[in-house]
Amino acid sequence: KQDVEDSYLNQGVKEDTSEDTSEDPWQDEEYFGSYGTLRLQLEMLSDRARTEAYRQVILTNSAPLKGKVVMDLGCGTGVISLFCARLAQPKAVYAVEASSIAEHTETLVRQNGCEEVVTVFQGRAEELELPGTVDILISEWMGNCLLFEFMVESVLQARDRWLREGGMMWPSGASLCLVPCQALDYYTERMVFWEQPYGLDFTALQSLAQSEFFSRPRFSHLLKPEDCLATPCDVITLDMLTLHVTDLEKLRGQFTFIVEKAGTFHGFTSWFRVQFQSLERDKTTLELL
Amino acid sequence: KQDVEDSYLNQGVKEDTSEDTSEDPWQDEEYFGSYGTLRLQLEMLSDRARTEAYRQVILTNSAPLKGKVVMDLGCGTGVISLFCARLAQPKAVYAVEASSIAEHTETLVRQNGCEEVVTVFQGRAEELELPGTVDILISEWMGNCLLFEFMVESVLQARDRWLREGGMMWPSGASLCLVPCQALDYYTERMVFWEQPYGLDFTALQSLAQSEFFSRPRFSHLLKPEDCLATPCDVITLDMLTLHVTDLEKLRGQFTFIVEKAGTFHGFTSWFRVQFQSLERDKTTLELL
Ligand SMILES: [Ca+2]
Ligand SMILES: [Ca+2]
Repeated sequence: KQDVEDSYLNQGVKEDTSEDTSEDPWQDEEYFGSYGTLRLQLEMLSDRARTEAYRQVILTNSAPLKGKVVMDLGCGTGVISLFCARLAQPKAVYAVEASSIAEHTETLVRQNGCEEVVTVFQGRAEELELPGTVDILISEWMGNCLLFEFMVESVLQARDRWLREGGMMWPSGASLCLVPCQALDYYTERMVFWEQPYGLDFTALQSLAQSEFFSRPRFSHLLKPEDCLATPCDVITLDMLTLHVTDLEKLRGQFTFIVEKAGTFHGFTSWFRVQFQSLERDKTTLELL
Repeated sequence: KQDVEDSYLNQGVKEDTSEDTSEDPWQDEEYFGSYGTLRLQLEMLSDRARTEAYRQVILTNSAPLKGKVVMDLGCGTGVISLFCARLAQPKAVYAVEASSIAEHTETLVRQNGCEEVVTVFQGRAEELELPGTVDILISEWMGNCLLFEFMVESVLQARDRWLREGGMMWPSGASLCLVPCQALDYYTERMVFWEQPYGLDFTALQSLAQSEFFSRPRFSHLLKPEDCLATPCDVITLDMLTLHVTDLEKLRGQFTFIVEKAGTFHGFTSWFRVQFQSLERDKTTLELL
Protein backbone atom coordinates (compact mmCIF):
# COMPACT_ATOMS: atom_id res chain seq x y z
CA LYS A 1 0.00 0.00 0.00
CA GLN A 2 1.14 3.45 -0.92
CA ASP A 3 0.72 5.87 1.91
CA VAL A 4 0.31 9.49 0.98
CA GLU A 5 -1.48 10.72 4.06
CA ASP A 6 0.89 13.53 4.92
CA SER A 7 0.88 14.97 1.46
CA TYR A 8 -2.90 14.88 1.49
CA LEU A 9 -3.14 16.62 4.81
CA ASN A 10 -0.85 19.38 3.69
CA GLN A 11 -1.95 19.91 0.16
CA GLY A 12 -5.51 18.81 0.55
CA VAL A 13 -8.26 20.87 -0.91
CA LYS A 14 -7.85 24.54 -1.62
CA GLU A 15 -8.96 26.77 1.23
CA ASP A 16 -12.40 27.96 0.29
CA THR A 17 -12.62 31.46 1.67
CA SER A 18 -16.28 31.90 0.90
CA GLU A 19 -17.27 28.41 1.89
CA ASP A 20 -20.64 28.97 3.47
CA THR A 21 -22.00 30.93 0.56
CA SER A 22 -21.71 28.05 -1.84
CA GLU A 23 -23.72 24.92 -1.52
CA ASP A 24 -22.03 21.73 -2.53
CA PRO A 25 -22.62 22.01 -6.28
CA TRP A 26 -23.31 18.30 -6.49
CA GLN A 27 -26.27 18.63 -4.14
CA ASP A 28 -27.66 21.11 -6.59
CA GLU A 29 -31.04 20.77 -8.25
CA GLU A 30 -29.23 21.38 -11.47
CA TYR A 31 -27.11 18.27 -11.01
CA PHE A 32 -28.17 16.85 -14.36
CA GLY A 33 -28.75 20.18 -16.08
CA SER A 34 -26.27 21.95 -18.26
CA TYR A 35 -25.51 25.01 -16.16
CA GLY A 36 -22.33 24.67 -14.24
CA THR A 37 -21.49 21.42 -15.96
CA LEU A 38 -18.02 22.42 -16.89
CA ARG A 39 -17.29 23.92 -13.51
CA LEU A 40 -17.91 20.52 -11.92
CA GLN A 41 -15.72 18.81 -14.48
CA LEU A 42 -12.99 21.35 -13.98
CA GLU A 43 -13.19 20.75 -10.26
CA MET A 44 -12.49 17.06 -10.73
CA LEU A 45 -9.85 17.55 -13.40
CA SER A 46 -8.08 20.24 -11.40
CA ASP A 47 -7.85 17.85 -8.48
CA ARG A 48 -4.57 16.55 -9.77
CA ALA A 49 -4.02 14.05 -6.94
CA ARG A 50 -7.37 12.42 -7.61
CA THR A 51 -7.18 12.33 -11.38
CA GLU A 52 -3.56 11.18 -11.29
CA ALA A 53 -4.51 8.31 -8.99
CA TYR A 54 -6.92 6.95 -11.60
CA ARG A 55 -4.30 7.46 -14.29
CA GLN A 56 -1.77 5.59 -12.19
CA VAL A 57 -4.10 2.64 -11.58
CA ILE A 58 -4.66 2.27 -15.30
CA LEU A 59 -0.99 2.66 -16.10
CA THR A 60 0.20 0.10 -13.57
CA ASN A 61 -2.51 -2.33 -14.71
CA SER A 62 -2.02 -1.78 -18.43
CA ALA A 63 -0.87 -5.34 -19.11
CA PRO A 64 -3.84 -7.13 -17.48
CA LEU A 65 -6.23 -4.51 -18.95
CA LYS A 66 -5.45 -5.78 -22.44
CA GLY A 67 -8.56 -7.17 -24.10
CA LYS A 68 -10.80 -6.32 -21.13
CA VAL A 69 -14.18 -4.56 -21.26
CA VAL A 70 -14.37 -1.53 -18.99
CA MET A 71 -17.29 0.57 -17.80
CA ASP A 72 -16.51 4.15 -16.74
CA LEU A 73 -19.60 5.19 -14.80
CA GLY A 74 -20.27 8.91 -14.46
CA CYS A 75 -17.48 9.51 -16.91
CA GLY A 76 -17.88 13.28 -17.19
CA THR A 77 -15.49 14.52 -19.86
CA GLY A 78 -14.35 10.93 -20.29
CA VAL A 79 -10.90 11.46 -18.88
CA ILE A 80 -10.74 8.02 -17.23
CA SER A 81 -12.01 6.30 -20.39
CA LEU A 82 -9.38 8.10 -22.41
CA PHE A 83 -6.71 7.02 -19.95
CA CYS A 84 -7.85 3.41 -20.47
CA ALA A 85 -7.80 3.69 -24.24
CA ARG A 86 -4.48 5.50 -24.42
CA LEU A 87 -2.49 3.80 -21.68
CA ALA A 88 -3.77 0.25 -22.09
CA GLN A 89 -5.41 -1.84 -24.79
CA PRO A 90 -8.88 -2.69 -23.55
CA LYS A 91 -11.29 -4.37 -25.94
CA ALA A 92 -13.94 -1.73 -25.23
CA VAL A 93 -14.69 1.11 -22.84
CA TYR A 94 -18.27 2.05 -22.11
CA ALA A 95 -18.28 5.66 -20.95
CA VAL A 96 -21.56 6.33 -19.15
CA GLU A 97 -22.73 9.81 -18.22
CA ALA A 98 -26.16 11.13 -17.25
CA SER A 99 -25.50 14.86 -17.43
CA SER A 100 -25.40 16.94 -20.57
CA ILE A 101 -21.61 16.98 -20.59
CA ALA A 102 -21.98 13.63 -22.37
CA GLU A 103 -22.75 15.52 -25.58
CA HIS A 104 -19.20 16.84 -25.48
CA THR A 105 -17.62 13.61 -24.32
CA GLU A 106 -18.17 11.98 -27.69
CA THR A 107 -16.33 14.83 -29.42
CA LEU A 108 -13.45 14.52 -26.98
CA VAL A 109 -13.24 10.79 -27.59
CA ARG A 110 -12.97 11.38 -31.34
CA GLN A 111 -10.55 14.25 -30.98
CA ASN A 112 -8.26 12.01 -28.97
CA GLY A 113 -8.51 9.22 -31.52
CA CYS A 114 -10.23 6.78 -29.17
CA GLU A 115 -13.56 6.27 -30.93
CA GLU A 116 -12.68 2.68 -31.90
CA VAL A 117 -12.46 1.72 -28.25
CA VAL A 118 -14.58 4.18 -26.26
CA THR A 119 -18.36 4.39 -26.69
CA VAL A 120 -20.33 7.06 -24.87
CA PHE A 121 -23.73 6.19 -23.38
CA GLN A 122 -25.77 9.16 -22.24
CA GLY A 123 -28.29 8.27 -19.59
CA ARG A 124 -28.74 7.35 -15.98
CA ALA A 125 -27.02 4.25 -14.69
CA GLU A 126 -30.39 2.77 -13.74
CA GLU A 127 -31.71 2.84 -17.30
CA LEU A 128 -28.48 1.78 -18.89
CA GLU A 129 -28.45 -0.65 -21.83
CA LEU A 130 -24.98 -1.93 -22.66
CA PRO A 131 -23.87 -4.42 -25.33
CA GLY A 132 -22.91 -6.86 -22.59
CA THR A 133 -21.23 -7.35 -19.25
CA VAL A 134 -17.97 -5.70 -18.26
CA ASP A 135 -14.78 -6.96 -16.65
CA ILE A 136 -14.04 -3.77 -14.74
CA LEU A 137 -16.31 -1.08 -13.39
CA ILE A 138 -14.38 2.10 -12.74
CA SER A 139 -15.99 5.20 -11.31
CA GLU A 140 -15.13 8.41 -9.51
CA TRP A 141 -18.23 8.42 -7.34
CA MET A 142 -16.83 9.78 -4.09
CA GLY A 143 -18.24 13.00 -2.72
CA ASN A 144 -17.90 15.04 0.43
CA CYS A 145 -17.75 12.77 3.46
CA LEU A 146 -17.36 9.99 0.93
CA LEU A 147 -21.08 9.34 0.51
CA PHE A 148 -22.61 12.75 -0.24
CA GLU A 149 -23.99 12.87 -3.79
CA PHE A 150 -25.11 9.31 -3.09
CA MET A 151 -23.79 8.25 -6.46
CA VAL A 152 -22.55 5.07 -4.79
CA GLU A 153 -26.06 3.66 -5.10
CA SER A 154 -25.96 3.96 -8.89
CA VAL A 155 -22.54 2.34 -8.91
CA LEU A 156 -23.84 -0.68 -6.99
CA GLN A 157 -26.86 -1.02 -9.25
CA ALA A 158 -24.66 -0.86 -12.33
CA ARG A 159 -22.35 -3.44 -10.76
CA ASP A 160 -25.21 -5.85 -10.06
CA ARG A 161 -26.51 -5.59 -13.61
CA TRP A 162 -23.35 -5.33 -15.70
CA LEU A 163 -20.25 -6.56 -13.89
CA ARG A 164 -19.38 -10.12 -14.81
CA GLU A 165 -18.86 -12.74 -12.11
CA GLY A 166 -15.31 -12.27 -10.79
CA GLY A 167 -15.01 -8.77 -12.27
CA MET A 168 -13.17 -5.90 -10.65
CA MET A 169 -14.43 -2.69 -9.09
CA TRP A 170 -12.22 0.43 -9.08
CA PRO A 171 -12.12 1.72 -6.43
CA SER A 172 -12.39 -1.68 -4.82
CA GLY A 173 -12.66 -0.34 -1.29
CA ALA A 174 -13.42 2.96 0.39
CA SER A 175 -13.17 4.26 3.93
CA LEU A 176 -14.57 7.26 5.70
CA CYS A 177 -11.94 8.65 8.05
CA LEU A 178 -12.56 10.81 11.06
CA VAL A 179 -10.40 12.76 13.45
CA PRO A 180 -11.11 15.20 16.27
CA CYS A 181 -9.34 18.43 15.47
CA GLN A 182 -8.84 22.02 16.27
CA ALA A 183 -9.53 24.78 13.76
CA LEU A 184 -8.18 27.80 15.51
CA ASP A 185 -7.96 30.23 12.58
CA TYR A 186 -11.47 29.48 11.44
CA TYR A 187 -12.80 29.69 14.97
CA THR A 188 -10.98 32.93 15.66
CA GLU A 189 -12.19 34.64 12.51
CA ARG A 190 -15.83 33.75 13.21
CA MET A 191 -16.13 33.55 17.00
CA VAL A 192 -13.27 35.32 18.76
CA PHE A 193 -13.68 38.13 16.24
CA TRP A 194 -16.78 39.44 18.06
CA GLU A 195 -14.97 39.90 21.34
CA GLN A 196 -13.45 43.23 20.45
CA PRO A 197 -13.77 44.34 16.84
CA TYR A 198 -12.57 47.94 16.51
CA GLY A 199 -12.53 48.22 20.29
CA LEU A 200 -16.25 47.40 20.60
CA ASP A 201 -17.93 44.62 22.52
CA PHE A 202 -19.86 42.44 20.09
CA THR A 203 -19.95 39.31 22.24
CA ALA A 204 -23.75 39.45 22.10
CA LEU A 205 -23.46 38.14 18.55
CA GLN A 206 -21.49 35.06 19.46
CA SER A 207 -24.42 32.72 19.88
CA LEU A 208 -25.75 33.83 16.48
CA ALA A 209 -22.26 33.33 15.05
CA GLN A 210 -22.14 29.87 16.51
CA SER A 211 -25.40 28.82 14.92
CA GLU A 212 -24.64 30.51 11.62
CA PHE A 213 -21.06 29.33 11.15
CA PHE A 214 -20.87 26.13 13.15
CA SER A 215 -24.15 24.29 12.78
CA ARG A 216 -23.53 22.82 9.35
CA PRO A 217 -20.58 20.86 8.02
CA ARG A 218 -17.90 22.93 6.39
CA PHE A 219 -16.71 21.52 3.10
CA SER A 220 -13.19 21.98 1.78
CA HIS A 221 -11.47 22.41 5.08
CA LEU A 222 -7.71 22.23 4.95
CA LEU A 223 -6.54 20.13 7.87
CA LYS A 224 -2.99 20.57 9.05
CA PRO A 225 -1.42 17.48 10.63
CA GLU A 226 -0.66 19.42 13.82
CA ASP A 227 -4.36 20.23 14.20
CA CYS A 228 -5.30 16.56 14.60
CA LEU A 229 -5.92 15.88 18.28
CA ALA A 230 -5.76 12.10 17.98
CA THR A 231 -4.94 9.35 15.52
CA PRO A 232 -7.53 9.34 12.70
CA CYS A 233 -9.74 6.31 12.50
CA ASP A 234 -11.72 4.61 9.74
CA VAL A 235 -15.34 4.86 10.81
CA ILE A 236 -16.86 3.14 7.82
CA THR A 237 -15.19 0.80 5.38
CA LEU A 238 -16.89 -0.35 2.21
CA ASP A 239 -16.00 -3.34 0.08
CA MET A 240 -17.27 -2.30 -3.31
CA LEU A 241 -17.54 -5.89 -4.54
CA THR A 242 -19.78 -7.14 -1.74
CA LEU A 243 -21.60 -4.02 -0.53
CA HIS A 244 -25.37 -4.06 -1.08
CA VAL A 245 -27.61 -1.08 -1.76
CA THR A 246 -29.64 -2.04 1.31
CA ASP A 247 -26.48 -1.90 3.44
CA LEU A 248 -26.27 1.81 2.73
CA GLU A 249 -29.39 2.49 4.77
CA LYS A 250 -27.99 0.96 7.89
CA LEU A 251 -24.37 1.99 7.71
CA ARG A 252 -22.97 2.41 11.19
CA GLY A 253 -19.50 3.12 12.41
CA GLN A 254 -17.76 3.11 15.74
CA PHE A 255 -14.87 5.20 16.87
CA THR A 256 -12.68 5.65 19.90
CA PHE A 257 -10.16 8.43 20.06
CA ILE A 258 -7.43 8.75 22.63
CA VAL A 259 -6.49 12.40 22.84
CA GLU A 260 -2.92 12.62 24.05
CA LYS A 261 -2.22 16.12 22.90
CA ALA A 262 -3.12 19.56 24.23
CA GLY A 263 -5.41 21.64 22.06
CA THR A 264 -8.95 22.92 21.70
CA PHE A 265 -11.45 20.50 20.27
CA HIS A 266 -13.43 22.41 17.64
CA GLY A 267 -14.94 19.53 15.76
CA PHE A 268 -14.32 16.51 13.60
CA THR A 269 -12.71 16.47 10.20
CA SER A 270 -13.66 13.69 7.87
CA TRP A 271 -12.19 12.64 4.54
CA PHE A 272 -12.09 9.48 2.53
CA ARG A 273 -9.59 6.96 1.37
CA VAL A 274 -10.12 4.60 -1.53
CA GLN A 275 -8.19 1.55 -2.65
CA PHE A 276 -7.67 0.18 -6.12
CA GLN A 277 -6.88 -3.49 -6.06
CA SER A 278 -4.49 -4.68 -8.72
CA LEU A 279 -5.88 -6.90 -11.49
CA GLU A 280 -2.96 -9.23 -10.86
CA ARG A 281 -3.04 -11.11 -7.56
CA ASP A 282 -0.38 -10.11 -5.04
CA LYS A 283 0.43 -6.89 -6.80
CA THR A 284 0.40 -3.52 -5.00
CA THR A 285 -2.94 -1.99 -4.16
CA LEU A 286 -2.99 1.69 -5.01
CA GLU A 287 -4.50 4.00 -2.48
CA LEU A 288 -5.86 7.51 -2.84
CA LEU A 289 -6.34 9.64 0.22
CA LYS B 1 -7.05 63.90 -0.84
CA GLN B 2 -5.53 60.74 0.50
CA ASP B 3 -4.50 58.40 -2.22
CA VAL B 4 -4.36 54.73 -1.31
CA GLU B 5 -4.80 53.27 -4.76
CA ASP B 6 -1.72 51.07 -4.73
CA SER B 7 -2.51 49.55 -1.38
CA TYR B 8 -6.03 48.86 -2.59
CA LEU B 9 -4.84 47.21 -5.75
CA ASN B 10 -2.48 44.97 -3.87
CA GLN B 11 -4.51 44.12 -0.85
CA GLY B 12 -7.92 44.40 -2.42
CA VAL B 13 -10.45 41.74 -1.81
CA LYS B 14 -9.49 38.20 -0.97
CA GLU B 15 -9.13 35.93 -3.97
CA ASP B 16 -12.37 34.01 -4.19
CA THR B 17 -11.40 30.59 -5.42
CA SER B 18 -14.94 29.33 -5.80
CA GLU B 19 -16.31 32.56 -7.19
CA ASP B 20 -18.84 31.30 -9.66
CA THR B 21 -20.59 29.05 -7.19
CA SER B 22 -21.64 31.88 -4.95
CA GLU B 23 -24.05 34.53 -6.03
CA ASP B 24 -23.53 37.97 -4.66
CA PRO B 25 -25.25 37.44 -1.31
CA TRP B 26 -26.72 40.93 -1.46
CA GLN B 27 -28.61 40.07 -4.61
CA ASP B 28 -30.15 37.26 -2.67
CA GLU B 29 -33.87 36.80 -2.17
CA GLU B 30 -33.07 36.44 1.48
CA TYR B 31 -31.62 39.93 1.63
CA PHE B 32 -33.99 40.95 4.40
CA GLY B 33 -34.36 37.53 5.93
CA SER B 34 -32.41 36.22 8.85
CA TYR B 35 -30.36 33.50 7.22
CA GLY B 36 -26.87 34.58 6.46
CA THR B 37 -27.37 37.86 8.27
CA LEU B 38 -24.25 37.56 10.28
CA ARG B 39 -22.19 36.39 7.35
CA LEU B 40 -22.96 39.64 5.53
CA GLN B 41 -22.13 41.67 8.62
CA LEU B 42 -18.90 39.80 9.11
CA GLU B 43 -18.02 40.48 5.49
CA MET B 44 -18.32 44.22 6.04
CA LEU B 45 -16.63 44.18 9.45
CA SER B 46 -13.78 42.02 8.20
CA ASP B 47 -13.14 44.52 5.44
CA ARG B 48 -10.81 46.43 7.68
CA ALA B 49 -9.93 49.09 5.11
CA ARG B 50 -13.57 49.95 4.60
CA THR B 51 -14.63 49.94 8.23
CA GLU B 52 -11.51 51.83 9.28
CA ALA B 53 -12.26 54.53 6.70
CA TYR B 54 -15.62 55.23 8.35
CA ARG B 55 -13.96 55.18 11.75
CA GLN B 56 -11.34 57.64 10.52
CA VAL B 57 -13.92 60.04 9.11
CA ILE B 58 -15.72 60.13 12.43
CA LEU B 59 -12.52 60.50 14.38
CA THR B 60 -11.14 63.37 12.29
CA ASN B 61 -14.53 65.11 12.42
CA SER B 62 -15.15 64.52 16.11
CA ALA B 63 -15.09 68.23 17.00
CA PRO B 64 -17.70 69.40 14.47
CA LEU B 65 -19.80 66.27 15.14
CA LYS B 66 -20.49 67.52 18.65
CA GLY B 67 -24.20 68.18 19.19
CA LYS B 68 -25.12 66.95 15.70
CA VAL B 69 -27.89 64.51 14.79
CA VAL B 70 -26.67 61.62 12.68
CA MET B 71 -28.54 58.99 10.68
CA ASP B 72 -26.71 55.70 10.03
CA LEU B 73 -28.71 54.12 7.23
CA GLY B 74 -28.43 50.35 6.81
CA CYS B 75 -26.52 50.27 10.06
CA GLY B 76 -26.18 46.49 10.31
CA THR B 77 -24.58 45.68 13.63
CA GLY B 78 -24.43 49.41 14.31
CA VAL B 79 -20.67 49.68 14.10
CA ILE B 80 -20.73 53.15 12.49
CA SER B 81 -23.29 54.42 15.00
CA LEU B 82 -21.14 53.14 17.81
CA PHE B 83 -18.10 54.87 16.33
CA CYS B 84 -20.08 58.12 16.33
CA ALA B 85 -21.20 57.71 19.93
CA ARG B 86 -17.83 56.65 21.24
CA LEU B 87 -15.46 58.83 19.22
CA ALA B 88 -17.54 62.02 19.07
CA GLN B 89 -20.37 63.62 21.03
CA PRO B 90 -23.33 63.75 18.72
CA LYS B 91 -26.70 64.76 20.12
CA ALA B 92 -28.34 61.66 18.70
CA VAL B 93 -27.65 58.83 16.30
CA TYR B 94 -30.52 57.16 14.47
CA ALA B 95 -29.40 53.68 13.49
CA VAL B 96 -31.69 52.40 10.74
CA GLU B 97 -31.71 48.80 9.60
CA ALA B 98 -34.29 46.82 7.62
CA SER B 99 -32.95 43.31 8.12
CA SER B 100 -33.41 41.16 11.19
CA ILE B 101 -29.92 41.93 12.44
CA ALA B 102 -31.54 45.06 13.90
CA GLU B 103 -32.89 42.93 16.74
CA HIS B 104 -29.32 42.38 17.82
CA THR B 105 -28.16 45.93 17.14
CA GLU B 106 -30.10 47.26 20.10
CA THR B 107 -28.36 44.81 22.42
CA LEU B 108 -24.98 45.83 21.03
CA VAL B 109 -25.78 49.48 21.56
CA ARG B 110 -26.62 48.82 25.21
CA GLN B 111 -23.65 46.55 25.74
CA ASN B 112 -21.38 49.30 24.52
CA GLY B 113 -23.01 51.87 26.74
CA CYS B 114 -24.36 53.97 23.90
CA GLU B 115 -28.12 53.69 24.46
CA GLU B 116 -28.39 57.32 25.56
CA VAL B 117 -27.20 58.48 22.15
CA VAL B 118 -27.99 55.71 19.66
CA THR B 119 -31.57 54.68 18.85
CA VAL B 120 -32.23 51.72 16.58
CA PHE B 121 -35.07 51.91 14.04
CA GLN B 122 -35.94 48.63 12.40
CA GLY B 123 -37.62 49.05 9.06
CA ARG B 124 -37.06 50.01 5.47
CA ALA B 125 -35.72 53.44 4.70
CA GLU B 126 -38.84 54.23 2.67
CA GLU B 127 -41.20 53.72 5.62
CA LEU B 128 -38.95 55.39 8.13
CA GLU B 129 -40.39 57.65 10.84
CA LEU B 130 -37.73 59.60 12.70
CA PRO B 131 -38.09 62.16 15.50
CA GLY B 132 -36.85 64.87 13.16
CA THR B 133 -34.32 65.82 10.52
CA VAL B 134 -30.65 64.96 10.71
CA ASP B 135 -27.46 66.92 10.16
CA ILE B 136 -25.48 64.06 8.69
CA LEU B 137 -26.57 60.99 6.77
CA ILE B 138 -23.92 58.33 6.88
CA SER B 139 -24.26 55.02 5.11
CA GLU B 140 -22.19 52.17 3.79
CA TRP B 141 -24.35 51.57 0.72
CA MET B 142 -21.72 50.66 -1.84
CA GLY B 143 -21.87 47.27 -3.48
CA ASN B 144 -20.13 45.47 -6.29
CA CYS B 145 -19.49 47.85 -9.18
CA LEU B 146 -20.54 50.55 -6.75
CA LEU B 147 -24.24 50.37 -7.57
CA PHE B 148 -25.18 46.70 -7.25
CA GLU B 149 -27.58 46.16 -4.34
CA PHE B 150 -29.12 49.44 -5.47
CA MET B 151 -29.22 50.59 -1.91
CA VAL B 152 -28.23 54.03 -3.17
CA GLU B 153 -31.87 54.65 -4.06
CA SER B 154 -32.93 54.21 -0.43
CA VAL B 155 -30.13 56.52 0.63
CA LEU B 156 -31.35 59.28 -1.69
CA GLN B 157 -34.94 58.87 -0.54
CA ALA B 158 -33.87 59.05 3.09
CA ARG B 159 -31.80 62.12 2.28
CA ASP B 160 -34.72 63.89 0.62
CA ARG B 161 -37.00 63.21 3.57
CA TRP B 162 -34.71 63.55 6.56
CA LEU B 163 -31.53 65.47 5.81
CA ARG B 164 -31.80 69.12 6.83
CA GLU B 165 -31.00 71.89 4.38
CA GLY B 166 -27.21 72.21 4.29
CA GLY B 167 -26.66 68.82 5.89
CA MET B 168 -23.83 66.48 5.04
CA MET B 169 -23.78 63.15 3.26
CA TRP B 170 -21.09 60.57 4.06
CA PRO B 171 -19.86 59.45 1.63
CA SER B 172 -20.30 62.79 -0.10
CA GLY B 173 -19.13 61.54 -3.46
CA ALA B 174 -18.57 58.24 -5.21
CA SER B 175 -16.92 57.15 -8.43
CA LEU B 176 -17.01 53.98 -10.45
CA CYS B 177 -13.54 53.25 -11.80
CA LEU B 178 -12.67 51.12 -14.76
CA VAL B 179 -9.51 49.76 -16.28
CA PRO B 180 -8.74 47.33 -19.10
CA CYS B 181 -6.68 44.53 -17.66
CA GLN B 182 -5.19 41.13 -18.16
CA ALA B 183 -6.05 38.19 -15.91
CA LEU B 184 -3.59 35.59 -17.04
CA ASP B 185 -3.81 33.15 -14.11
CA TYR B 186 -7.58 33.10 -14.16
CA TYR B 187 -7.63 32.72 -17.94
CA THR B 188 -5.02 29.98 -17.88
CA GLU B 189 -6.80 27.93 -15.24
CA ARG B 190 -10.10 28.04 -17.09
CA MET B 191 -9.20 28.31 -20.79
CA VAL B 192 -5.63 27.26 -21.46
CA PHE B 193 -6.23 24.32 -19.12
CA TRP B 194 -8.22 22.44 -21.78
CA GLU B 195 -5.38 22.49 -24.28
CA GLN B 196 -3.56 19.52 -22.83
CA PRO B 197 -4.78 18.27 -19.46
CA TYR B 198 -3.02 14.99 -18.63
CA GLY B 199 -1.71 14.85 -22.19
CA LEU B 200 -5.21 14.86 -23.69
CA ASP B 201 -6.74 17.27 -26.18
CA PHE B 202 -9.77 18.91 -24.57
CA THR B 203 -9.82 22.02 -26.76
CA ALA B 204 -13.35 21.06 -27.84
CA LEU B 205 -14.50 22.29 -24.44
CA GLN B 206 -13.03 25.76 -24.78
CA SER B 207 -16.11 27.41 -26.21
CA LEU B 208 -18.19 25.94 -23.39
CA ALA B 209 -15.55 27.12 -20.92
CA GLN B 210 -15.70 30.59 -22.39
CA SER B 211 -19.45 30.87 -21.97
CA GLU B 212 -19.44 29.26 -18.54
CA PHE B 213 -16.56 31.15 -16.99
CA PHE B 214 -16.40 34.40 -18.93
CA SER B 215 -19.94 35.50 -19.68
CA ARG B 216 -20.79 36.95 -16.30
CA PRO B 217 -18.95 39.45 -14.16
CA ARG B 218 -16.56 37.95 -11.70
CA PHE B 219 -16.80 39.47 -8.25
CA SER B 220 -13.88 39.74 -5.86
CA HIS B 221 -11.14 39.78 -8.41
CA LEU B 222 -7.74 40.74 -7.09
CA LEU B 223 -6.17 43.15 -9.54
CA LYS B 224 -2.41 43.53 -9.49
CA PRO B 225 -1.10 46.93 -10.60
CA GLU B 226 1.03 45.31 -13.30
CA ASP B 227 -2.10 43.76 -14.82
CA CYS B 228 -3.62 47.16 -15.61
CA LEU B 229 -3.16 47.85 -19.31
CA ALA B 230 -3.91 51.56 -19.09
CA THR B 231 -4.52 54.32 -16.59
CA PRO B 232 -7.81 53.68 -14.75
CA CYS B 233 -10.56 56.18 -15.36
CA ASP B 234 -13.64 57.33 -13.44
CA VAL B 235 -16.58 56.34 -15.61
CA ILE B 236 -19.32 57.59 -13.32
CA THR B 237 -19.06 60.16 -10.55
CA LEU B 238 -21.90 60.79 -8.14
CA ASP B 239 -22.40 63.82 -5.94
CA MET B 240 -24.44 62.40 -3.10
CA LEU B 241 -25.86 65.80 -2.14
CA THR B 242 -27.30 66.67 -5.53
CA LEU B 243 -27.91 63.29 -7.19
CA HIS B 244 -31.57 62.49 -7.87
CA VAL B 245 -33.23 59.09 -7.85
CA THR B 246 -34.31 59.72 -11.44
CA ASP B 247 -30.69 60.34 -12.44
CA LEU B 248 -29.93 56.72 -11.57
CA GLU B 249 -32.02 55.48 -14.47
CA LYS B 250 -30.04 57.39 -17.05
CA LEU B 251 -26.53 57.13 -15.68
CA ARG B 252 -24.03 57.15 -18.50
CA GLY B 253 -20.31 57.25 -18.54
CA GLN B 254 -17.61 57.73 -21.13
CA PHE B 255 -14.16 56.37 -21.20
CA THR B 256 -11.06 56.48 -23.35
CA PHE B 257 -8.09 54.29 -22.60
CA ILE B 258 -4.69 54.66 -24.15
CA VAL B 259 -2.98 51.30 -23.93
CA GLU B 260 0.75 51.88 -23.92
CA LYS B 261 1.77 48.56 -22.50
CA ALA B 262 2.10 45.08 -23.96
CA GLY B 263 -0.25 42.45 -22.57
CA THR B 264 -3.37 40.45 -23.31
CA PHE B 265 -6.66 42.23 -22.82
CA HIS B 266 -8.91 39.85 -20.92
CA GLY B 267 -11.52 42.28 -19.72
CA PHE B 268 -12.27 45.27 -17.56
CA THR B 269 -11.90 45.53 -13.82
CA SER B 270 -14.11 47.97 -12.01
CA TRP B 271 -14.04 49.18 -8.43
CA PHE B 272 -15.27 52.21 -6.59
CA ARG B 273 -13.88 55.17 -4.76
CA VAL B 274 -15.81 57.25 -2.26
CA GLN B 275 -15.04 60.61 -0.69
CA PHE B 276 -15.97 61.91 2.72
CA GLN B 277 -16.03 65.68 2.79
CA SER B 278 -14.92 67.25 6.06
CA LEU B 279 -17.58 68.99 8.14
CA GLU B 280 -15.20 71.94 8.41
CA ARG B 281 -14.62 73.86 5.19
CA ASP B 282 -11.16 73.57 3.66
CA LYS B 283 -10.27 70.53 5.70
CA THR B 284 -9.00 67.35 4.09
CA THR B 285 -11.46 65.13 2.30
CA LEU B 286 -11.00 61.51 3.21
CA GLU B 287 -11.08 59.01 0.43
CA LEU B 288 -11.72 55.29 0.44
CA LEU B 289 -10.70 53.24 -2.54
CA1 LIG C 1 -17.15 12.91 -7.04
CA1 LIG D 1 -22.30 47.45 0.95
